[in-house]
Amino acid sequence: MPVYKAPVEDVMFLLNDVFPIERYNNLPGFADATSDTVEAILAEGAKLCEEVFAPLNLSGDQEGCTRNPDGSVTTPKGFKEAYEAYAAGGWMGLAAPDEFGGQGLPSVLNTIMQEFVSSSNLALGMYPGLTQGAIAALIVHGTEEQKKTYLPKMIEGTWTGTMNLTEPHCGTDLGLLKTKAVPNGDGSYAISGTKIFISAGEHDMAENIVHLVLARIEGAPAGTKGISLFVVPKVLVNQDGSLGERNGVSCGSLEHKMGIHGNATCVMNYDGARGWLVGEANRGLNAMFVMMNEARLAVGVQGLAQSEVAYQNAVAYAKDRLQGRSLTGAKFPDKPADPIIVHPDVRRTLMSIKAFNEAGRAFIVWTGLNNDIAHRSSDEAQRQVAEDYMGLMTPVAKGVLTDLGFDNAVKAQQMFGGHGYIEEWGMSQFVRDARIAMIYEGANGIQAMDLVGRKLGKDGGRAVMTFFNEVGAFCQENAGDESLKPYIAPLQQGLGHLQQATMWFMQNAMAKPDNAGAGATDYMHLFGLVVLGYMWARMAKAAQAKKAQGNGVAEKMDAKLLTGRFFMERLMPETATRLALITTGADTTMAMPVEAF
Amino acid sequence: MPVYKAPVEDVMFLLNDVFPIERYNNLPGFADATSDTVEAILAEGAKLCEEVFAPLNLSGDQEGCTRNPDGSVTTPKGFKEAYEAYAAGGWMGLAAPDEFGGQGLPSVLNTIMQEFVSSSNLALGMYPGLTQGAIAALIVHGTEEQKKTYLPKMIEGTWTGTMNLTEPHCGTDLGLLKTKAVPNGDGSYAISGTKIFISAGEHDMAENIVHLVLARIEGAPAGTKGISLFVVPKVLVNQDGSLGERNGVSCGSLEHKMGIHGNATCVMNYDGARGWLVGEANRGLNAMFVMMNEARLAVGVQGLAQSEVAYQNAVAYAKDRLQGRSLTGAKFPDKPADPIIVHPDVRRTLMSIKAFNEAGRAFIVWTGLNNDIAHRSSDEAQRQVAEDYMGLMTPVAKGVLTDLGFDNAVKAQQMFGGHGYIEEWGMSQFVRDARIAMIYEGANGIQAMDLVGRKLGKDGGRAVMTFFNEVGAFCQENAGDESLKPYIAPLQQGLGHLQQATMWFMQNAMAKPDNAGAGATDYMHLFGLVVLGYMWARMAKAAQAKKAQGNGVAEKMDAKLLTGRFFMERLMPETATRLALITTGADTTMAMPVEAF
Repeated sequence: MPVYKAPVEDVMFLLNDVFPIERYNNLPGFADATSDTVEAILAEGAKLCEEVFAPLNLSGDQEGCTRNPDGSVTTPKGFKEAYEAYAAGGWMGLAAPDEFGGQGLPSVLNTIMQEFVSSSNLALGMYPGLTQGAIAALIVHGTEEQKKTYLPKMIEGTWTGTMNLTEPHCGTDLGLLKTKAVPNGDGSYAISGTKIFISAGEHDMAENIVHLVLARIEGAPAGTKGISLFVVPKVLVNQDGSLGERNGVSCGSLEHKMGIHGNATCVMNYDGARGWLVGEANRGLNAMFVMMNEARLAVGVQGLAQSEVAYQNAVAYAKDRLQGRSLTGAKFPDKPADPIIVHPDVRRTLMSIKAFNEAGRAFIVWTGLNNDIAHRSSDEAQRQVAEDYMGLMTPVAKGVLTDLGFDNAVKAQQMFGGHGYIEEWGMSQFVRDARIAMIYEGANGIQAMDLVGRKLGKDGGRAVMTFFNEVGAFCQENAGDESLKPYIAPLQQGLGHLQQATMWFMQNAMAKPDNAGAGATDYMHLFGLVVLGYMWARMAKAAQAKKAQGNGVAEKMDAKLLTGRFFMERLMPETATRLALITTGADTTMAMPVEAF
Repeated sequence: MPVYKAPVEDVMFLLNDVFPIERYNNLPGFADATSDTVEAILAEGAKLCEEVFAPLNLSGDQEGCTRNPDGSVTTPKGFKEAYEAYAAGGWMGLAAPDEFGGQGLPSVLNTIMQEFVSSSNLALGMYPGLTQGAIAALIVHGTEEQKKTYLPKMIEGTWTGTMNLTEPHCGTDLGLLKTKAVPNGDGSYAISGTKIFISAGEHDMAENIVHLVLARIEGAPAGTKGISLFVVPKVLVNQDGSLGERNGVSCGSLEHKMGIHGNATCVMNYDGARGWLVGEANRGLNAMFVMMNEARLAVGVQGLAQSEVAYQNAVAYAKDRLQGRSLTGAKFPDKPADPIIVHPDVRRTLMSIKAFNEAGRAFIVWTGLNNDIAHRSSDEAQRQVAEDYMGLMTPVAKGVLTDLGFDNAVKAQQMFGGHGYIEEWGMSQFVRDARIAMIYEGANGIQAMDLVGRKLGKDGGRAVMTFFNEVGAFCQENAGDESLKPYIAPLQQGLGHLQQATMWFMQNAMAKPDNAGAGATDYMHLFGLVVLGYMWARMAKAAQAKKAQGNGVAEKMDAKLLTGRFFMERLMPETATRLALITTGADTTMAMPVEAF
């Protein structure tokens, strides 16, 4: 059975030393989030994930979900009870407003908890995860009545939520969607159409399921400007809040997927189901984007989470599996062979995953804090900086953390040799589960286009310039610190490559947009490396400071500093190649006649 | 249902124009292999793969193999008949000696056929694939009687073969193996022990299964020097060649694997089974290596094969799926959206797979020809060069083609968006099947160590120096050809990086072997890029020449030349990063205390 231990200590280093959470105590909800309280909360969350969620991961994969003849869906054994434990612990509303039953704590804590949940059981974690996305959309765009009707039940976990975008002929290109909404005359609409790939679309965990559905009001303009968002409960809600009759929505079938078998991925049939408009008519994409941005960040976290749990298991195996001898002579001559962690290629692999995980975690914590500022700060200027940051970093977090998270799961699986290919060891599941994160909530190619095509040029490049200035200033401020040189110098070089790539787009992509398209994925990864490198530089600085204080943390901080050096030596150099690829432009990419492929 | 068309035309370009097969007609078996004959043979092979093997791929994955209560194993519906069609077509013995019923044709044709077979149905192709490996080992190391007993039946396909190396506690480190062989006093041995991960270990396709088994003769020295190879038939063979009683070997269980579900991966229990020594006592690894080297090359081919079939399906989808509009304006304004092949990121992805596939195919053809020279040439000097080449390139072909083959299957799957994650589309299977090729026949980290630790320094570096000289000479000879500049210049740069890396190992790895271990995987990939780049340079030269001849091939040759330029611009630049990583050395990789992982 795979192992999992939530990295609470690593998170506390980030929240105490790298991005001290106490600096944010002027934000609503942060006053209660002292370091001690946060640690206690996370310890509770870790316990739930380690003891309840993780033990159901492999069995949930093997059992999968079942659609019964009546259209109901049974989730794997133990999932319902685990979900109830999650709900009972108040985790659904950890960062939700008090007025609807939430705890109002910083949303960064929820982001951190999402990592633990996704590491321990991604398929199970998606049920509350999607609910949180739906909650976020209703908070921003719902009417007061909708909020009152749905939010308390969703926050207490009695009802869950979903997002319904995709149709058989349209995924990325939502302008093509056909699901129809016809006014019933009573303020509600009759929703008809078929949605596919609806995660948690039907299941046995909750009394009701609140579907947020994109549809086109009869007579609305074609394309994306004619799409509206509706709330469509599985069971209609009476005036007094009690459950009424079943609505005209049902699960037509379950998809057979490569992974996340424990999550019910449904084809949902809407057959004149009653729904109510959320936000303005024809502005549905706008409303859905609130949910989608939350979800994209959460998916980035899933990528990191799979990398982390795969790493932990690969380390355990590498310490245990005896095979061959160290190149520098037997390390355990009394044993029949050395543990494989003595082999440089094994170590290199483990170190590169570790170096990614710790920087990725810093990235999501830093992003989570910015998310809180963007939503909670009363200082408009500060809020704008944070919003800019979120816009810029959401595609980077989603695209880079999931691409590398998957690669790392594959690398970790490789450490097991043939055993990695056998399902009972659990490594195959991490790979199969991690694979979806590169696809859903906008395939990573779309994230790259979002970054390059939309986010870079937005507001005259304000967001990206702010980021470049921040990293540049950090490098300059610390240039004199000899002990930080192994971090600052490579970061500066990487930043230089990123700036050159950005400049190249400015000079070459305006007249010829294909140049942006052909370089977008490389640019996203170049960007990601600079972000992760910046995270390492900040962690190194904090680690040096912490080490200087003594307190017996020298060994831990040395490990941190060493891992950061490994990142700079072994992962950061890729920025040069990425720049080289970007600046080749689109010519050879676009020249091939379609029939010659 | 996924599509597959065997790339016969591309192969014929290689055999007619790049590595003209007619130049080899002094080798045994090549006189009959005229271009026309070869094309006719491959067209037959293509037909079998496209029409019989491919249609069973998805169903075989979904059905898998079943172990029955009596220990027999049932393969998926249709597999037995497809295998019989393969055997009846004479494919098993395509390159095997006439005296045992083979066709004696060049083994490069078998290598090419392995690509088609592995693309169309990897799990099914493994049954004959392993048999061919066992045939190769028996030809080299079997006694005359063993050859007479087993080879004709195996070559006609009535019996299949397996290789039994791995035990629960030993995979890479075969020195640890425990399976025992006790002399029976009649020339046979009683073999006892448990072998795991035995592909095609038990099935319903053949009358008998010929297991080649590594075991330790009672009293043999510990470690790898006490291992012997035995032939252990599932059913004992009578003096007259008829089948006798069942031997003491059986399938204890089937593994639940991530992929290749149609292949029976068995735990094999040997319970005093009668076996006969193959080759010398205690020299079993030597004998097994014949089989293993064949198998490693075949596994490299599997990596390419999965990349090819995944590519073909991604292209078909990208031409068909309508989503979004071209960045340069609608290409199909009459349709609701453009096919996604208009998008630069999609094209970049498809081009990079195509650029790999065509070079990978050249690599295996070139290697296949060298394999023929090594085995068939009467010129000792020529044979030695080819043997050197095979020793050097086997780990590169296995490691690089399978790593990149898997990556490409993942990229191709990504083109499908959410549909790529749904099993019915078949893309998940290509990824899951491709994954094993990175693991079996020596995990790719082992291939890298074999290359760096054994092959580089062998015979004073003779093989690697010959290769460097060959590529260097090719560059020099063609330096004056302006039309080849886009290929030669990047290749020269890549070769320079590879030579620098090699030099760095010579200077830094003797005293500190960890420096070799920590850089081995990067070195293997750097090596692979130079090999593939060299293949492209040779193909470009041949394409220019062919284009100059006219004959209406200009469009095809232009596509070839463009794909090669893409390779040079978009894949080759990675050599710089690989060199940078190698020369960082092992310090940060090895410094972490084990408990800090």
